[in-house]
Amino acid sequence: MSGPEGAPAVSDGTARKRGRPRRTDSDAAGTRDRILVAAREEFSERGYEKTSVRGIAKAAGVDSALVHHYFGTKEQVFAASIEVAFAPALNASDTVAEGSLDGVGERLTRFIFGIWENPTTRTPLLAIVRSAVNNETAAAVFRRLVASQLLRRIAAQVDAPDAELRAELAAAQLIGTAMLRYVIKVEPLASADPEQIIARVAPVVQGHLTGA
Amino acid sequence: MSGPEGAPAVSDGTARKRGRPRRTDSDAAGTRDRILVAAREEFSERGYEKTSVRGIAKAAGVDSALVHHYFGTKEQVFAASIEVAFAPALNASDTVAEGSLDGVGERLTRFIFGIWENPTTRTPLLAIVRSAVNNETAAAVFRRLVASQLLRRIAAQVDAPDAELRAELAAAQLIGTAMLRYVIKVEPLASADPEQIIARVAPVVQGHLTGA
Repeated sequence: MSGPEGAPAVSDGTARKRGRPRRTDSDAAGTRDRILVAAREEFSERGYEKTSVRGIAKAAGVDSALVHHYFGTKEQVFAASIEVAFAPALNASDTVAEGSLDGVGERLTRFIFGIWENPTTRTPLLAIVRSAVNNETAAAVFRRLVASQLLRRIAAQVDAPDAELRAELAAAQLIGTAMLRYVIKVEPLASADPEQIIARVAPVVQGHLTGA
Repeated sequence: MSGPEGAPAVSDGTARKRGRPRRTDSDAAGTRDRILVAAREEFSERGYEKTSVRGIAKAAGVDSALVHHYFGTKEQVFAASIEVAFAPALNASDTVAEGSLDGVGERLTRFIFGIWENPTTRTPLLAIVRSAVNNETAAAVFRRLVASQLLRRIAAQVDAPDAELRAELAAAQLIGTAMLRYVIKVEPLASADPEQIIARVAPVVQGHLTGA
């Protein structure tokens, strides 16, 4: 199924490098990607509320109408840019699926910390968290994506009647740790060796997912 | 030591009811409290960045100069209003101190959930968390107060070389759970019975504080 001007109507979930579109739908895909890159930067710098479709269009060097044409409303541009930024995090559910359930806590914890420790993936994640904390619409988008695409896929691997609640409480430990370490920067947590944190957090995540 | 107009120069850490100042320094204390109430409301509604000393003064029905006179800069008004909002949370360290270390996880978890479940105490807490996530200055104030007044006091009760890190990871589980339940409102966590959550979270908090 193709969208307007031959661009795929549905995001393929990968962030292609700006200026390097696929040959088959080069122009449209290039424009779409350029809008997404601009959107991510605008949402990162200004947060959800202060970002406008007009500002995104200006940063991407296109007309506002083209942003609406490809994505729809501001909320939909936000959702699309979250999907791209979250692509590595969404792989976490695959990480959980690989290997035995015994090591799931450590695999998930290492994976999530890998995303946060890398400045390239941390910045957009931080912007999303900030927007979600501040704005109800952004929170709803975040909730839908994180809950349905990440947490439910993790929960599906866990054989327990309260699997979803377990996955959420495991996520709570990871999100709270990230908040205190990377956002609020409380010491000694902010400067602690990642291995020291993983050694303490992984068993907790494991316990939430598969414990008694 | 007394400040200008007989008001205490240093906050005594208690939030006196508006309109019921102590007899000894009634006018000044009344004005000071009125400014604090207005500040808390302004920070709650607008967040740190959009709140101004002028707006706080207007809401309190006083001149901006009086706000500066009592508190100093916007950052200092914010710190004072956090201290008032956090007064119940700061008691958590006393809660930890009472009774045996065996039950510390459940006591602390019940206490923190009690604050979040009560809308009166939840609203200012939410405003502080939002401001701290968004603004570096607000984050610094939050960090200073939470780290030094809450986490270090809890850590002081724990007999372990990495007591502070333990207290922070326990706080991370509590903060992350609160974020997902009350801010992002992920289901089923957002609608779960508090007792069900406490039953799962308290052992984790206990494990962080006193586990192997």
